[in-house]
Amino acid sequence: MFEAAEIGHKLAKGEFKRIEPQLRGDLLDAQYELSRLGRFPVVILISGVRGAGKGETVNLLNAWMDPRHIHTHAFDNPTDEERDRPPMWRYWRALPPKGRIGMLFGSWYTAPIIDRVFKRSRPAELLQSVDEIRRFERMLADDGVLLLKFWFHLSKKRQRERLKALEADPKTRWRVTQRDWDFFRYYNRFYRISEDTIRQTSLPWAPWTIVEGSDPEYRVATVARTLLEAMRARLDQARDTGTQPPAQPLTPLVRSAGDTDLLSQLDLSVSMSRKKFDTELAKQQQRLALLTRHPRFREHHVVAVFEGMDAAGKGGAIRRITGALDARLYRTIPIAAPTDEERAQPYLWRFWRHVPMKGRLTLYDRSWYGRVLVERVEKFATPAEWSRAYAEINDFEEQLARNGGILVKYWLQISKEEQYRRFKEREATRHKQFKITAEDWRNRKRWAQYQTAANEMIERTGTSAAPWTLVPANDKYHARIQVIKTLCDRIEALL
Amino acid sequence: MFEAAEIGHKLAKGEFKRIEPQLRGDLLDAQYELSRLGRFPVVILISGVRGAGKGETVNLLNAWMDPRHIHTHAFDNPTDEERDRPPMWRYWRALPPKGRIGMLFGSWYTAPIIDRVFKRSRPAELLQSVDEIRRFERMLADDGVLLLKFWFHLSKKRQRERLKALEADPKTRWRVTQRDWDFFRYYNRFYRISEDTIRQTSLPWAPWTIVEGSDPEYRVATVARTLLEAMRARLDQARDTGTQPPAQPLTPLVRSAGDTDLLSQLDLSVSMSRKKFDTELAKQQQRLALLTRHPRFREHHVVAVFEGMDAAGKGGAIRRITGALDARLYRTIPIAAPTDEERAQPYLWRFWRHVPMKGRLTLYDRSWYGRVLVERVEKFATPAEWSRAYAEINDFEEQLARNGGILVKYWLQISKEEQYRRFKEREATRHKQFKITAEDWRNRKRWAQYQTAANEMIERTGTSAAPWTLVPANDKYHARIQVIKTLCDRIEALL
Repeated sequence: MFEAAEIGHKLAKGEFKRIEPQLRGDLLDAQYELSRLGRFPVVILISGVRGAGKGETVNLLNAWMDPRHIHTHAFDNPTDEERDRPPMWRYWRALPPKGRIGMLFGSWYTAPIIDRVFKRSRPAELLQSVDEIRRFERMLADDGVLLLKFWFHLSKKRQRERLKALEADPKTRWRVTQRDWDFFRYYNRFYRISEDTIRQTSLPWAPWTIVEGSDPEYRVATVARTLLEAMRARLDQARDTGTQPPAQPLTPLVRSAGDTDLLSQLDLSVSMSRKKFDTELAKQQQRLALLTRHPRFREHHVVAVFEGMDAAGKGGAIRRITGALDARLYRTIPIAAPTDEERAQPYLWRFWRHVPMKGRLTLYDRSWYGRVLVERVEKFATPAEWSRAYAEINDFEEQLARNGGILVKYWLQISKEEQYRRFKEREATRHKQFKITAEDWRNRKRWAQYQTAANEMIERTGTSAAPWTLVPANDKYHARIQVIKTLCDRIEALL
Repeated sequence: MFEAAEIGHKLAKGEFKRIEPQLRGDLLDAQYELSRLGRFPVVILISGVRGAGKGETVNLLNAWMDPRHIHTHAFDNPTDEERDRPPMWRYWRALPPKGRIGMLFGSWYTAPIIDRVFKRSRPAELLQSVDEIRRFERMLADDGVLLLKFWFHLSKKRQRERLKALEADPKTRWRVTQRDWDFFRYYNRFYRISEDTIRQTSLPWAPWTIVEGSDPEYRVATVARTLLEAMRARLDQARDTGTQPPAQPLTPLVRSAGDTDLLSQLDLSVSMSRKKFDTELAKQQQRLALLTRHPRFREHHVVAVFEGMDAAGKGGAIRRITGALDARLYRTIPIAAPTDEERAQPYLWRFWRHVPMKGRLTLYDRSWYGRVLVERVEKFATPAEWSRAYAEINDFEEQLARNGGILVKYWLQISKEEQYRRFKEREATRHKQFKITAEDWRNRKRWAQYQTAANEMIERTGTSAAPWTLVPANDKYHARIQVIKTLCDRIEALL
C-alpha cells in the first residue's frame, strides 16, 4: 500500500503555480458555502511519519482558506482533565460544530498504533481498538460529519534524509528531538502496523488518503484536491434535502410471544411500609456515604441514568441518593432541549461533555435514551437515527465502563392508572403544579408506544457492563429503596 | 466581627422542626421561579474554617432544593488546564447560567487569604487581590448576578473540639487530615486576615454573612433564610422590568478641543510599494516564526485583538500573521452573535472561555470591544452596560497581562471614501460578495458615531500593559506590515 507512495510523486513548481489560484478560490468558496449552509462539519485527520510535511501542509491550508472557520487541534500528552476520563473524551471535545472545519493533528489512531509499535499492547488489543474506531467513525458519518483521513508517508531512506536535513539547518534544528530518532529506529514495525490499521479502516464513509510526503507542492495539492472534491460532492448533495436514505428496518431482537414482554412481566404490586422504608433508607444512605468515600472509589466514577414514564418518581429517587452524597462529588443533569451549541454536534456530544472525572458521580434525569424513547415516539428523530442509536449508545457506555465507570441504569415502571392518580394529585397540590404540563397529558396518550419503545431499549442496551435495573414504582418506598440499594451493590462489587 | 459568631448561637431542634417544612417549600418555590424566569443566576460562596459544617450545610440545601438546578463546585488544586491560565479562569468556567444556582466551595478568596496566612504573599499583594475581587464582584452584580457569601466560623476552642471529635469517631476519622491541624496552628493569623478581608469586601451588592458553625440547626437555618430572603427580594424586583437604574453619565476622559481627536490625527496617506511589502513581509513572517518557537515563548501567550470599521482589512492582516504561525499553536475567533449558552452568562464569559494556554496565540476578529462599539452605537447595550464595560475590560486585560499574556490591540483606520471604494469593489468581485451585506451599508451611515465610540474606547482602554496600536489602513501593504511588525516587537520585548 505504502509502496505507491514511495515512487517519487512530484508536482512541478510551474504547474503548481498554474493551478494554485483556482484551487484556493474553489476551496474558499466551498468553505463559505459550508459555513452558510451550517448543515455538517468537516473533520480532517492528519497522521503519518515525522518529517513528511504534515505541519507545513496544514499551515498552508490554513493560509489558503479562512482560518477563522478552521479549528486546528494538536493532541500532545493529555492534560490531567483528559487523563481522568475515557480516552475518546478529548476527541469529542475537539469536534468542530456544523459549518466548520476541524483539523486534528494526531487522532484516535495515534495511541493504538504507537502502543502496539512499542509493544505496550497486544495484537488483540489493537484489533479491538480498530473495531471501536470503525464504529466511532461510522457514527460520525451517520451523523453527517464529512470525515477525511490523510496519512503522510516517507520511505525509510527519505525519512532519514529529512531528519538529517532538518538537524543540519540551525533554523529548524529545534524541530528534531531524540524522540524522533527513537521512533525512526522502529520504522519497519511502525510501517507494518500503520499499513494494517489503514487497510482495516479504509471505508467509503471514512476514507484514507496516503500522501507521499517528500515534495511540498505535490503533498499540499493532493490534500487540497481531495478535500475540495469531497466538500464539493457533499455540498451539492446537501442542497438536495429530499434524499434521506431509507432506514434499514430493525428486526426485533427477541420476538415477543403474545403479550409477554419484560415490562409487563413486572410485579407492580410490591410495596414497603413507611416504617421499614425509614429504617432501610437510613441504612442504605449510610452505606452509600461510606462507599463513595472509600479510597478505592477515587479510581471509579458513577454514571446513573434515570428513565421512566412521566411521574414515575425519578426526581424523588434521585434525591434519596444525593441526600447521602457529598455535594462536591456529584452533579445532577436534567436533560432538557439541547442548546444551540449542542445541536451543532453529533447527538452524544452533549452527554460526553458531562462525563465525570474519577471519584465523581453524575446522575442523569433522563438521558441519551431520549433518542430511542421520546424522540422515536414523537418522531423528532428519523427511524434511521434512532435505530442506529442502540449501537452508538452501547459503544458509549462500554467506553465509560472500561475506564472505571460504574453504569447504573434505571427504568421506573408505573401502571397507567397510577400515573393518572399522580397527575391529578400534582394538579391539586400547589407546590407540585409546576411538575404537570399539557405535554404530560399528551405523552400519556401514547402510553403503548412508549412501552414498546422502552421494551426494545431494554432488550437492545442491557449489557453486562451496563445492565438495566427495572424498578416497579407504583409504591415509592419500595422503588426508592431498590434504586439506592442497587447503586450501593454495584459500587461495592467493584471496590 | 467574629466575636458575634462565637456566642453559642443555637436553634432548638423542636423549633427547627417547626420551621423546616415552610422554609423548604419556600426555597423550592423560589428556585423554580428563578428557573422559570431565567433572568439572573445565584452565586453562593461557601468559605470559612474547617469543621464548621460547610459540607453538611451545602448537602442539606441540595437535599431541600432541587439538585438538578444547582451546580456545586469544589475548588481543590487547580488542574493543569487551569494552572496554565489566569487564576480567575477556573471561576469563570464554573459560573452558573441564568436561572441556576451555583454553590462554590472555596472561591476567589481562598488563595489570597491562604497565601497571606502562610506568608507566601506580602500585605500589599493581599490588598491588591482584595481590590480586584471588589471589582470582579461589582461586575457580577452589575451583570445581574445575585451574589451571596457565607463565612462559617468557629472559635479556636470549638474548632479544636470539633476536629478531635471527628478524629475520635471511626466513621469520620478520614475527614481530618494533617493539613487541618497545620491550618489549626495558624488559627490566630487566619482569624485576623480573614476578618480583615471580609470587612473590606462586605458590600451591598456582595454581602458576607458570618455563620456560627457549631450548631447544625442554626447554621443551616441561617443560610437558608438569608438565601431565601435575598432570592425573594430579587425575584420580586425582577418582575418589575421597567426599573433599570439610570446610568451615571460618563464625563469625557479627555476633553477634545474642536475637531481634534486621536483618530482624525492619523496620517492615512502613508503607503508602501508592493515590492517593499513582499520583502518586508517575508522578513517579519520569518521573525514571527522564530519568536513563537522560542523556548521562553512557552511562558507567555498572545491575545491579539483586531478592531476597525467594516472593510478596514482585519481579515487580511490576520492572515498575514497566521501565515507565519504553526497552526497547532493559534486559534482565530471570529466574533459573531453569542450562542444561547453565552447569552446566559456575564458579557465577558464568552471571551474568557477562549483564553489561550501558555505558549498559544488567540487572534480575535472583533472582540469584547464590541460592547463599546457596535453595541453602544446600535443601542444593543444600555448606557449603563457599555459605560461600565471600560473598567471591566481593563480588569480582564490586566489579568491576562499579569499571567504572561502579551496583549496586542489594533484599530485599523480607513477613510470614509476608502470604505466606499472597497464596498463597491466587493460587490463587483464574485468571491468577495459574501463579505458585503446590507448591514455594512447601514453601519456606514453611522460613521461619525462609530468614530466617536472608537476614540473614546482608545482613550479609556489604552493601558501600558495593553496599549492600542492605531493603524492607518487606507494602504493595505503599509497596514499589514505595521500589524505584524508590532506583534513581533511586543513579543520580542517580553522574551
